[in-house]
Amino acid sequence: MTERFSYLDHLQCPRCQARYPAQAPRNLCHCGSPLLAGYDLDALRAALTPARLASRPPDLWRYHELLPVASAERVVSLGEPMTPLLMLPKLGASLDLADLWIKDDASLPTGTFKARGAAIGVSRAVELGIDRIAMPTNGNAGAAWAAYAAKAGLRCLVVMPEDAPEITRKECVVTGAEVHLVAGRIDDAGKMVARLVAGGEFFDVSTLKEPYRLEGKKTLGLEIAEQLGWRPPDVIVYPTGGGVGLLGIWKALQELRALGWLDGTLPRMVAVQATGCAPIVRAFEAGETVSQPWERSETIAFGITVPKPLGDFLILETLRQSHGRAVAVDDRAILADQAEMARREGRFICPEGAATVSAVRMLRQSGWLRREDRTLLINTGTGLKYPETVTAALPVLRPGEDIRGSTRRSGP
Amino acid sequence: MTERFSYLDHLQCPRCQARYPAQAPRNLCHCGSPLLAGYDLDALRAALTPARLASRPPDLWRYHELLPVASAERVVSLGEPMTPLLMLPKLGASLDLADLWIKDDASLPTGTFKARGAAIGVSRAVELGIDRIAMPTNGNAGAAWAAYAAKAGLRCLVVMPEDAPEITRKECVVTGAEVHLVAGRIDDAGKMVARLVAGGEFFDVSTLKEPYRLEGKKTLGLEIAEQLGWRPPDVIVYPTGGGVGLLGIWKALQELRALGWLDGTLPRMVAVQATGCAPIVRAFEAGETVSQPWERSETIAFGITVPKPLGDFLILETLRQSHGRAVAVDDRAILADQAEMARREGRFICPEGAATVSAVRMLRQSGWLRREDRTLLINTGTGLKYPETVTAALPVLRPGEDIRGSTRRSGP
Repeated sequence: MTERFSYLDHLQCPRCQARYPAQAPRNLCHCGSPLLAGYDLDALRAALTPARLASRPPDLWRYHELLPVASAERVVSLGEPMTPLLMLPKLGASLDLADLWIKDDASLPTGTFKARGAAIGVSRAVELGIDRIAMPTNGNAGAAWAAYAAKAGLRCLVVMPEDAPEITRKECVVTGAEVHLVAGRIDDAGKMVARLVAGGEFFDVSTLKEPYRLEGKKTLGLEIAEQLGWRPPDVIVYPTGGGVGLLGIWKALQELRALGWLDGTLPRMVAVQATGCAPIVRAFEAGETVSQPWERSETIAFGITVPKPLGDFLILETLRQSHGRAVAVDDRAILADQAEMARREGRFICPEGAATVSAVRMLRQSGWLRREDRTLLINTGTGLKYPETVTAALPVLRPGEDIRGSTRRSGP
Repeated sequence: MTERFSYLDHLQCPRCQARYPAQAPRNLCHCGSPLLAGYDLDALRAALTPARLASRPPDLWRYHELLPVASAERVVSLGEPMTPLLMLPKLGASLDLADLWIKDDASLPTGTFKARGAAIGVSRAVELGIDRIAMPTNGNAGAAWAAYAAKAGLRCLVVMPEDAPEITRKECVVTGAEVHLVAGRIDDAGKMVARLVAGGEFFDVSTLKEPYRLEGKKTLGLEIAEQLGWRPPDVIVYPTGGGVGLLGIWKALQELRALGWLDGTLPRMVAVQATGCAPIVRAFEAGETVSQPWERSETIAFGITVPKPLGDFLILETLRQSHGRAVAVDDRAILADQAEMARREGRFICPEGAATVSAVRMLRQSGWLRREDRTLLINTGTGLKYPETVTAALPVLRPGEDIRGSTRRSGP
């Protein structure tokens, strides 16, 4: 008997509970909600154990039974190494946190966690016979989907704000995507994509408008659980724009719990936003179940500039279910903590990731985080894509000039 | 009995064969040659098997017996995932190569293979009691050493040409290194560092002026061998500046052969340089055993702008021993092949890595490469650090504007 590669079973609406077969391309539920992938976990429980996982190659495809791609031949991969999960002893000490960790997704293709969603989303699109995809993006998702689309031979159209990190538009262009810039925000780009896909030429792969990007992000949670010996941390701190990573981590933990693989309790989930665009924080604090569009969004952490996330109700529900929090931090704090991370731990992370440092600083000061809480920061990407976050105006020496005679140390 | 973490035994001069103990910090041999680390391979042969390796975590420390760091407690790590080794079917088909592969080091900390040398070099420096290091760099090595030095709490001083990729100076600054720019080339920077270290305050960690950076680069060869089932490819194509990666791969294969782990024959090693700075190619073609300084070096592949590599005699010896070649490619070809790789395979690689594509294109056309040769390209870093290699001048739409009505596809 050949082994089943994927245990994907159906698509389900988390709002109205409608079920759909998973064999055809699908966007939202008829009720307007995102759809979630459902797996045959009862069958999988009998077929797979954590011990069997341990001998597999260290990439996100090791979890293929819990992913939607039906066979190994359909996998579109650029090489997705299991990303490092490491302790931050020096930064932790400075924050009075004895057990601070980072999950650092900078090592994925295109330098961000967006590769997880793109790897699974593109593989699944090809499998379902889709050959043209379109999406709005704040830059990094577009770069990742463009790269995987190039590998797969899919045509890819991307619309992004003109203020998105410049390198991301170059990534899209060099991999052959069709790129459009808009003098607006990601919601403006989203509306333009919606009108385009209504023409039927392109399939809409916007955040949560197709169900498989989230399955890719789920591998973040699967890796975290496996790397920590199937015992989740006490707190997970996630920079939240569209929130797919947060939902993916949570879905991973739910599925692993249903499989009986998890020890201990589920983590408290913390959503971090920038004070310049904090619809989830505002709704969380007001006790609302959905968010309201944020006007005039602006932050250096461009990736989390999402004025009205489509999955807001799911994010808010997750935060409350997990006894978590939503926290807003300002750009000054983000830049200071990006530098703090680099100087203390040698990691040049993206501003979105740095926002999680600022958040735990606040949460520790308020006492919500205890000193001994095992706290995990999610870094969503490399700082290399944000050169504007570091100033390095240095004098230029002439060859032969004496180093000591010229300038002093630039560091603290 | 506790197991031995490292089988490092001594340092040896490859030119005059002098031996030195490995317990003290050391730069060059008294004869002026770089020193190489020697291991007790006879003892190791009895202690380790490939099968035992297989169950270890997938990072470069899995090879700790063949690395110089004496104990696990001395490891300075930023998380170094085993990097992807993948087939390039579409690019291969376009080049008439049926078995073309890439080893892509973009997923390492700081986005380049320089992290390998820095991880081992910094760990070993700390172990030997060194607390201040200085080096010249074309950018990426400085960024990597600065990051690991920050993690370790070492003071780090870097001198780089003002033309080095701008992001690399920012990486050094953000991680707290002391950075000096020079209106010259890496050899000018090297002379300034040499004068500085003569003062005794800093330890010189220039390329091949200390023996352990090469041991880090050796892990590239160890990973390649293991990932290909201990059977080396027919040809390995490496972008050559200082050449430490090429020497490291070759040293890895020699040690694995001495351990009896390798199947098949050793690969032909190809050194790729830019026509704007090709001292190794010139010396190889002239049948010389050392290179002569290249005047007025200039290429978009900035990382391989090394006018006179210190290890030139070792590089040339390796190329000849392995029945390899040295090949020069021009910037126009490099940029075209960087785009070709991105469009066909979804990988945005650095210009140094793209030079290997141009090289195999030439070598296949000349017939030196056969269609069925298993050919492995080494990509040394991510394209994200070279934004100037891609042009993306795009019109900006107004929110609500129709996508189809404005511009056409940017790709081919």
